[in-house]
Amino acid sequence: MEYVFSNKIRSLAPSAIREILKATADPSIIPLAAGNPAPEAFPVDAVREITKEILDTRPIEALQYGVTEGYTPLREKVREWVKARENIGTEKDTLLIVSGATQVMDLMTKVLCNEGDTVICEDPSFIGSLNCFRSYGCKLCGVPVEADGMDVNALEEALKKEKNVKFIYTIPNFQNPSGATMSLAKRQRLYALAKEYGVMILEDNPYGELIVEGEKLPCIKSMDTDGIVVYAGSFSKILSPGLRVAYTLAPAPVAAKMTVGKQASDVHTPVLNQMIVDTWLRRCDTDAHIEKLRAIYRKKRDLMCGEIDKHLGGFVTYVRPAGGLFVWCSLPEDVDMLDFVQKGVEHGVAVVPGNAFLTDDKMVSHEIRLNFSTPTDEKIVEGVRALGETAKSFQ
Amino acid sequence: MEYVFSNKIRSLAPSAIREILKATADPSIIPLAAGNPAPEAFPVDAVREITKEILDTRPIEALQYGVTEGYTPLREKVREWVKARENIGTEKDTLLIVSGATQVMDLMTKVLCNEGDTVICEDPSFIGSLNCFRSYGCKLCGVPVEADGMDVNALEEALKKEKNVKFIYTIPNFQNPSGATMSLAKRQRLYALAKEYGVMILEDNPYGELIVEGEKLPCIKSMDTDGIVVYAGSFSKILSPGLRVAYTLAPAPVAAKMTVGKQASDVHTPVLNQMIVDTWLRRCDTDAHIEKLRAIYRKKRDLMCGEIDKHLGGFVTYVRPAGGLFVWCSLPEDVDMLDFVQKGVEHGVAVVPGNAFLTDDKMVSHEIRLNFSTPTDEKIVEGVRALGETAKSFQ
Repeated sequence: MEYVFSNKIRSLAPSAIREILKATADPSIIPLAAGNPAPEAFPVDAVREITKEILDTRPIEALQYGVTEGYTPLREKVREWVKARENIGTEKDTLLIVSGATQVMDLMTKVLCNEGDTVICEDPSFIGSLNCFRSYGCKLCGVPVEADGMDVNALEEALKKEKNVKFIYTIPNFQNPSGATMSLAKRQRLYALAKEYGVMILEDNPYGELIVEGEKLPCIKSMDTDGIVVYAGSFSKILSPGLRVAYTLAPAPVAAKMTVGKQASDVHTPVLNQMIVDTWLRRCDTDAHIEKLRAIYRKKRDLMCGEIDKHLGGFVTYVRPAGGLFVWCSLPEDVDMLDFVQKGVEHGVAVVPGNAFLTDDKMVSHEIRLNFSTPTDEKIVEGVRALGETAKSFQ
Repeated sequence: MEYVFSNKIRSLAPSAIREILKATADPSIIPLAAGNPAPEAFPVDAVREITKEILDTRPIEALQYGVTEGYTPLREKVREWVKARENIGTEKDTLLIVSGATQVMDLMTKVLCNEGDTVICEDPSFIGSLNCFRSYGCKLCGVPVEADGMDVNALEEALKKEKNVKFIYTIPNFQNPSGATMSLAKRQRLYALAKEYGVMILEDNPYGELIVEGEKLPCIKSMDTDGIVVYAGSFSKILSPGLRVAYTLAPAPVAAKMTVGKQASDVHTPVLNQMIVDTWLRRCDTDAHIEKLRAIYRKKRDLMCGEIDKHLGGFVTYVRPAGGLFVWCSLPEDVDMLDFVQKGVEHGVAVVPGNAFLTDDKMVSHEIRLNFSTPTDEKIVEGVRALGETAKSFQ
């Protein structure tokens, strides 16, 4: 049989990062290409104890069907928790539990976009989200990212020019891949522009808690007096990505449609997993846990930046990220980035080529993304040294 | 803000069943409207022990990111398991783990259908799947279900007449809601027609193992020498629905696109949940467990059918289902079905109105769906008696 695929899916390629990770399944390759939390960041003992207790005392509830909106105690607890931590959520918002934050992008696109509609994205941006928008046949309009976040003047130009823009997608904190944090002034301007042009904002904040330097800035959602911001939050980076528990805080009419969409796509998020997160939030000292994570990632960031300065100083330029999991490095203009990445693999180290994160991945990029959360400290040192060796062949 | 939703989602209402279930959150209403497995069907002790062991010995693996295709040992084990149980799967097929079987419908539609394409469905059919197809803007073409399954002559007419048919959706075993099992001859004819007209088949088999009478018939997938059948299997009805672990066996090129689609929608199914199912399949006597389930459901089916004969004999007609979870009852032609369902609630019992399962739910239906897996034996007796009382007011 000759398979004919839908227009929206035909041109969608597997994530370049995941393909690179497969290529580097070879354990001799040092993986600076991933984005996994550090294994030592998982509260293993707490999860073990909590899970045992749930299955000892409430097994049927954990194993039976649940409701699409999410496990009610967890919805209430997360609402309270994000209100306390980020000052977001009003009576006009509904909190839904979803199966990983990518599902927020999925449901947002499903409920708002027809094929051919436009989504404005930071350029570069998280490849998983870009592929999600592409999987609905959306047109991506990229807006450059500066050291202090999205270029809001370019955003205004895009809003003037583009037709059928349904929402603006942004990762304001420690953006993936650029590591940039959007300034408060830009957050305010972005909100004002979205309001002025009648488009929604999809604020994705997976890394917000992983701040290792400076002041936490207010979420754009905290300014949302007009019901135009859908917020995506996740427990993947602070508790466990494998459990696939995340949430959205969205204006009630949008959340109602997202619920209908979720019902038709995965019915509900696993109940056991929701109960684990619920009990963890209620019982554990999440403040102390998050402080522990910050210490882990601060140390790893400092180590990686120090090694970059030592082995790649003068070759790459980068902005030291104030949080998150990545360092985004620019290669010299005369270096062919894809050639550099390929030679890196030959030197035993994998990084992600920058073009993977572009709204048009055929464009030339001089950037590479390095991850410091997955590798051990030893591997960070070895990996950056191998990149230094790679650089020598270009000098 | 005035929210403008996508065309495909605008007209999609929440599942009528879920709305009814919400209305019957009132514990005094006897719920014959649900479709939950019986609580006594869950292998609670095994899940408890297995989960403890996983978190004791392999916690990081369980909590870390996994790959989109599924946990490798589980993929291998399920492949072997369905080969042994259903004789399906060749080297041309790929087995993927998904987050509940509804995700198979979701990914199938995503990769094959453009908006406006047609999906041929049994009429009535599972509302969750119908809503999934609707959520992609597909046109539904219904083919009547007879006592021995889909009317294959009507199917041929539909294939001749309809444009842009992408696949035929069928639940051949103990169909939801009709309870009908498709005969072998019809399975063969359906396969031949799909091949002749160059359309794919989506075979959904959530209830196949819950056979309580007669011989197990071969899956349509077992005839698939042409790579035209995508099979959806699930652990929801035999292990736990709350864990949300299901699978698809699909021709490799289709599975490759489904993987890209899944990557962009929920990244991967929770790893802990996959490890629980994997260990359960490897360690437990699944044959004995399934026999136990059959005994539970046989007893409940017999009880419900006996009570129907006692309290509703001469009022409703039904075909005794050979498996599954439902009895599909036809009311007399002169009874207004929606009025009957409403009066049923007043008599303290909830059932699902038949029109909820139609491809056009505005059509008149004389059917109601009764579930015997969720209620206790006492509630089955009380519930059907209450329906008998309801019937009296129509006689």
